Amino acid sequence: MDEISERIRIKDIAKMSNVSVGTVDRVLHNRGGVSKENYERVKSIMDKLHYRPNMYASALASNKKYLFGCLLPIHKVGEYWTAVEDGIQEAIKAYSDFNISITINYYDPFKYSSFLISGNELLAQKPDGVMLTPSDPKMTEQFTTALRKQDIPYIFLDFNMPALNPLAFYGQNSVQSGYLAAKFLMLMAGKQTKEVAVFRQIKDGIIGSNQQEHREVGFRQYMKEHFSECKILSMDVHNRDFKEEHTLELFFKEHPNITNGITFNSKAYIIGEFLEKHQFTAFNLMGYDLLKRNVVCLKKGSISMIIAQKPEDQGYRGVSSLCDHLILKKTITPINYMPIDLLTAENIDFYMNFPR
Amino acid sequence: MDEISERIRIKDIAKMSNVSVGTVDRVLHNRGGVSKENYERVKSIMDKLHYRPNMYASALASNKKYLFGCLLPIHKVGEYWTAVEDGIQEAIKAYSDFNISITINYYDPFKYSSFLISGNELLAQKPDGVMLTPSDPKMTEQFTTALRKQDIPYIFLDFNMPALNPLAFYGQNSVQSGYLAAKFLMLMAGKQTKEVAVFRQIKDGIIGSNQQEHREVGFRQYMKEHFSECKILSMDVHNRDFKEEHTLELFFKEHPNITNGITFNSKAYIIGEFLEKHQFTAFNLMGYDLLKRNVVCLKKGSISMIIAQKPEDQGYRGVSSLCDHLILKKTITPINYMPIDLLTAENIDFYMNFPR
Repeated sequence: MDEISERIRIKDIAKMSNVSVGTVDRVLHNRGGVSKENYERVKSIMDKLHYRPNMYASALASNKKYLFGCLLPIHKVGEYWTAVEDGIQEAIKAYSDFNISITINYYDPFKYSSFLISGNELLAQKPDGVMLTPSDPKMTEQFTTALRKQDIPYIFLDFNMPALNPLAFYGQNSVQSGYLAAKFLMLMAGKQTKEVAVFRQIKDGIIGSNQQEHREVGFRQYMKEHFSECKILSMDVHNRDFKEEHTLELFFKEHPNITNGITFNSKAYIIGEFLEKHQFTAFNLMGYDLLKRNVVCLKKGSISMIIAQKPEDQGYRGVSSLCDHLILKKTITPINYMPIDLLTAENIDFYMNFPR
Repeated sequence: MDEISERIRIKDIAKMSNVSVGTVDRVLHNRGGVSKENYERVKSIMDKLHYRPNMYASALASNKKYLFGCLLPIHKVGEYWTAVEDGIQEAIKAYSDFNISITINYYDPFKYSSFLISGNELLAQKPDGVMLTPSDPKMTEQFTTALRKQDIPYIFLDFNMPALNPLAFYGQNSVQSGYLAAKFLMLMAGKQTKEVAVFRQIKDGIIGSNQQEHREVGFRQYMKEHFSECKILSMDVHNRDFKEEHTLELFFKEHPNITNGITFNSKAYIIGEFLEKHQFTAFNLMGYDLLKRNVVCLKKGSISMIIAQKPEDQGYRGVSSLCDHLILKKTITPINYMPIDLLTAENIDFYMNFPR
């Protein structure tokens, strides 16, 4: 039998320190008005007893308000970033007793200048801490330099740029993720496969997502190591001249025998819905992230496998790390790789029971 | 910009109800000593303001202690159930302010009578709530009937017996898990595969694990639907007459061409370490659960894929559900299927960053 020992209460500490309960309370909440001698005696008793001060009560006692700022790619409801925002809002609610609030600004991921403009708008609101999804490295550095000058801690979501020293990073290891994606695509494709398609989202020559770009690096690395004979056909789904539907029609006309492909962004449903409409049932398609339209395709069979990365958790942990750092003065783990979760029609429902 | 509105404080409610802060506190913690009129006025103000009483403070104010009982299969340190216990202990710590403690009793899963003996020992300690891993259905029913008679809520971990109406269940959907396992084993094996092995843990004719038994049902269902020509060779790793090593040697001598197999319990490492020792590198082995020895095999390549199910989370959520039900009077979701997580050498490390 393993009984947890009795909880230590403030009054126990007061008794042992030979001070009043009010004094212990003042020490706990850093409210001042305690002699140095008493302060140190109380602190040392707390240490000896491994007393975990009730930070919850401590935050309640404080009147300080915290504004967190967030800089995310602009998106429509239901797109990938919605899930990150859901996690952020959930955390803001969960930590509401700490008097925190959030302001979210958006940038156009396909327009580099937009990142800095939105970043400056965010700075003007004087946030106490910031979460952001890095964009172009140079633009991102300009912004984090400005944050550093104002002593504002910042957290990277989705993609890491370690040289820019964020307080913490939450996101997938993108190269490893693409590497694993290749392994599973080729398991489905079979060893004799001669060509696979990589469907890309590009606008005006800009990929607009560091994750997308680096997953493809990992993918190509696996293919080089294990299937160097297999041809990789890249195609840009977003074409300046045509609609996606027409671009895909052209591609499949040109490559009538291709039956395996992958997209490294969250919009696999564009391909999946096309495959379904044209009844290309033999095609193995892999994609990323649990957007509703992706999940529908997965269940219908037009997407064979999805890799997920707990975006709600990324948003939630971003907020909780800022609270831990700014309010609870805890140490933060700097690099936090999210899981690379493999989902099929058979396990998707169970996975979605646990978004975080 | 989305600012969270000001928090309502007890003193605001006191002011609006025209009572003292102490009276509001008494209402909140159900401590009595409040006139019916005042009680109802305070309650109605709280409702109007959607005031979430601070249950944390409420539990602190109460002196009631709770003993939770747990009935698990007996095991050595490092075996599957250790992870469930880790989650339980973590939750006991996390909820320590609620004055909860845990007592864990063990039964021999290969000896049905042992379940009832341990169950009775647990009952004698008068627990306020119980978590258990169901054993044989009849034995389990006897035990839950005794719990019901004493109005003790109980939670099933690992395997569900819905007819016995637990307060909640946390575990994998075992049939679906085996079904998915077959899909991935056959992806690795290839379509031409003529035979696959099922390695089982059996002692005196008793499988001893409902999960193991039902995963095999799902596995055979998939094979029947998709690979009805493929032969399934079952072998009992635990043989009364021989050591495991010798049993496996005999099996592989008898079936020299077999290169694919699965085990539905957590001891895939027994096969993995055998394969490694005998340098059977072409064998695709699938197994369950992230025991250290399994993870070592996965990284070395002697196990190709592991299915995991967040056992820490099962233990943690078992405890938190009992707290929610008994202390916070929250509604509990009765059926909670855990994820069916697919792990390879490439994504295992990231997964292990997030045991819960």
